[in-house]
Amino acid sequence: MINREYLAMLGNKSVIRELSEYATARGKEIGYENVFDFSLGNPSVPAPDRYRDISIRLLQEEEPLKLHGYNPTQGDPRVKEKVAESLRRRFGLPYTPSMIFPTSGAAGAIAHALRCVVEPGEEVIVFAPYFSEYDQYVGRTGAKLRVVPAKTDDFQINFEAAEEYFNEKTAAVLINTPNNPSGAVYTEETLRRLAQVLTAKSARYGHTIFLVSDEPYRDIVFDGKTQAYPAKFYPHTLTCYSFSKSLSLPGERVGYVAVCPDCEQADKMVPMMGQISRGIGHNCPSSLPMLAAACCLEDTSDLSVYETNMNLLYDTFRELGFTVPRPGGTFYIMPKALEEDAVAFCRKALKYDLVFVPGDGFRAPGFFRVAYCVDTEKVERSLAAIRRFVEAEYPDR
Amino acid sequence: MINREYLAMLGNKSVIRELSEYATARGKEIGYENVFDFSLGNPSVPAPDRYRDISIRLLQEEEPLKLHGYNPTQGDPRVKEKVAESLRRRFGLPYTPSMIFPTSGAAGAIAHALRCVVEPGEEVIVFAPYFSEYDQYVGRTGAKLRVVPAKTDDFQINFEAAEEYFNEKTAAVLINTPNNPSGAVYTEETLRRLAQVLTAKSARYGHTIFLVSDEPYRDIVFDGKTQAYPAKFYPHTLTCYSFSKSLSLPGERVGYVAVCPDCEQADKMVPMMGQISRGIGHNCPSSLPMLAAACCLEDTSDLSVYETNMNLLYDTFRELGFTVPRPGGTFYIMPKALEEDAVAFCRKALKYDLVFVPGDGFRAPGFFRVAYCVDTEKVERSLAAIRRFVEAEYPDR
Repeated sequence: MINREYLAMLGNKSVIRELSEYATARGKEIGYENVFDFSLGNPSVPAPDRYRDISIRLLQEEEPLKLHGYNPTQGDPRVKEKVAESLRRRFGLPYTPSMIFPTSGAAGAIAHALRCVVEPGEEVIVFAPYFSEYDQYVGRTGAKLRVVPAKTDDFQINFEAAEEYFNEKTAAVLINTPNNPSGAVYTEETLRRLAQVLTAKSARYGHTIFLVSDEPYRDIVFDGKTQAYPAKFYPHTLTCYSFSKSLSLPGERVGYVAVCPDCEQADKMVPMMGQISRGIGHNCPSSLPMLAAACCLEDTSDLSVYETNMNLLYDTFRELGFTVPRPGGTFYIMPKALEEDAVAFCRKALKYDLVFVPGDGFRAPGFFRVAYCVDTEKVERSLAAIRRFVEAEYPDR
Repeated sequence: MINREYLAMLGNKSVIRELSEYATARGKEIGYENVFDFSLGNPSVPAPDRYRDISIRLLQEEEPLKLHGYNPTQGDPRVKEKVAESLRRRFGLPYTPSMIFPTSGAAGAIAHALRCVVEPGEEVIVFAPYFSEYDQYVGRTGAKLRVVPAKTDDFQINFEAAEEYFNEKTAAVLINTPNNPSGAVYTEETLRRLAQVLTAKSARYGHTIFLVSDEPYRDIVFDGKTQAYPAKFYPHTLTCYSFSKSLSLPGERVGYVAVCPDCEQADKMVPMMGQISRGIGHNCPSSLPMLAAACCLEDTSDLSVYETNMNLLYDTFRELGFTVPRPGGTFYIMPKALEEDAVAFCRKALKYDLVFVPGDGFRAPGFFRVAYCVDTEKVERSLAAIRRFVEAEYPDR
């Protein structure tokens, strides 16, 4: 017999995936350029030329046995050194290579970080809205995901509601800032208050509650601002990073976990991740993409496109009367739908070839996500369609 | 608190890893060229030039957004098509792309294949000697590993001993041919008999027992022979492959699972693997290395070196009076130690700067593994050291 649990999952199709498939099919009818597909978070600006040039140089100049050989269980020392040095310089925390664990993207990073700090039967708290894959990431560690409802005025953390979610089983809190799906950038104030809450709850329950901070959108922040660095506010932080968004490399699956130097048992974490990887089949990220990315720590793709797109959409949504927190970063915006049922709202939008994702899957019912990692020219063309949709379907808004 | 199970694993250092570290340290004293380090299974012949050339061409000619973009959950269609076509042609089974799941090396392949066909509490049978990481690969699925003792005259399968290991909980059998650590190549006769046993036991216990076949050494076979293809003998086979050895790319982590077309519920397996990857943080292998490897399905590194090395060592061991089954493939040979305690034997060998791995970890106590993926020149120099070691330590053998 085959595994019944995974077999049962085949029935549950991802809403995002279904909408994306709809968009592709519709594209075949009317031309994909005419489908305003805002469903998927796939970067729309190419990787920097330097990433390509460095990859080619490594292939041409490095000894193949060394370039493509097995890495140590805890990762390529060159990569660890470069990442630690960059984090030290950028964020002023004394990272050393032994605190860096290279991974297969953020998914791999979170898989390892969570398994370090939670045990089956414990609980992990997340704040809505959150990336829906967290259900799997947390569920497969044997821990239980507890979801604190969203603070829908600005998508910062709903601390009042959070109060009752902490208990003696709370092992970790998992945050994502800048946030997918809301575009919110947690402020210093939010992170300071979160640290206070975690410190108080750790004291109350007699064990450290760890912070797992998922930061693939760290470098996509608008208005000339930067993302405050969560590990600076709370020492027991495992920072999960991916180069998917900053270097537009989602398919290459490269990222890392950085264990905060002052984290409880910091020196044990990376060796534990080495052990964890044996049982889940990871054994380090791919050598060449990881090494090339580590040589591009100061580079990014042209991320300014996302800010341009955000402003176009934000202004239009506002003008049309939407309630919509202004995103501080990412390539997502999350307005309130014009009727209570965001699924019905998104279904109506499809008639205008607008593909939005209902917020229900992100635990923000009544809202919808717009992923604007598409060409600006297409975003511009979409504005008229949004206007037509809203004026025709919600004339009395 | 951090996870106690993984924390406890930090104490158990791998014997292979310790020996390899010893060899490196000793190398710093006397020059690594003077340490006959036969501890690690890291390929010693470079990747083919074509792999490098194709990688560079892909980087230069493919659109970066497409080359480095997210792959579908079930893998890059181009990779799946190429692998299916190659397997059809080589082995005459009607594979289609939907039966191929690209993975992060063989470790990733086995992680997914096992989770498809076993459930926690069930049992997986392996035949000693076996790659010691299987303990982790199987253990972390929640299933129990059952180890059938070795057939030490030729390291084929010990069918007599196997009889009592099957029961109603047996979900799968995990084989590895050509075999690490013994170098044995399972014969057609062995695979036919294994299929008969699996068919009979499946009937007896009322459920299909699956075969997970780990084949990273498929292309390293000696004497002009080839490895018989296990899935041709038993339909309920999930074949796990890695390009680590054939293309000398262990650090790039690329491989696949191929689900035999006649396997029970064959159409469900790859979609299930897509679900499995969400929970263990995989999300496809890296795009560029996987695509480049899939363009090199007809290529290999210069694997003839391993046969040359094997013959040098085999002849010397024979001449010195060792009992040693002749390897049919891989880059390993597994002679019987000259005293009962192979650990003591290997410790004595270190005095002669010979680094061998005791068979205990592979569940072949009394034997030792010699990994001859080293330069032939070094193997030639090692022969005198082996001779000195044996003549000095075991004069009365």
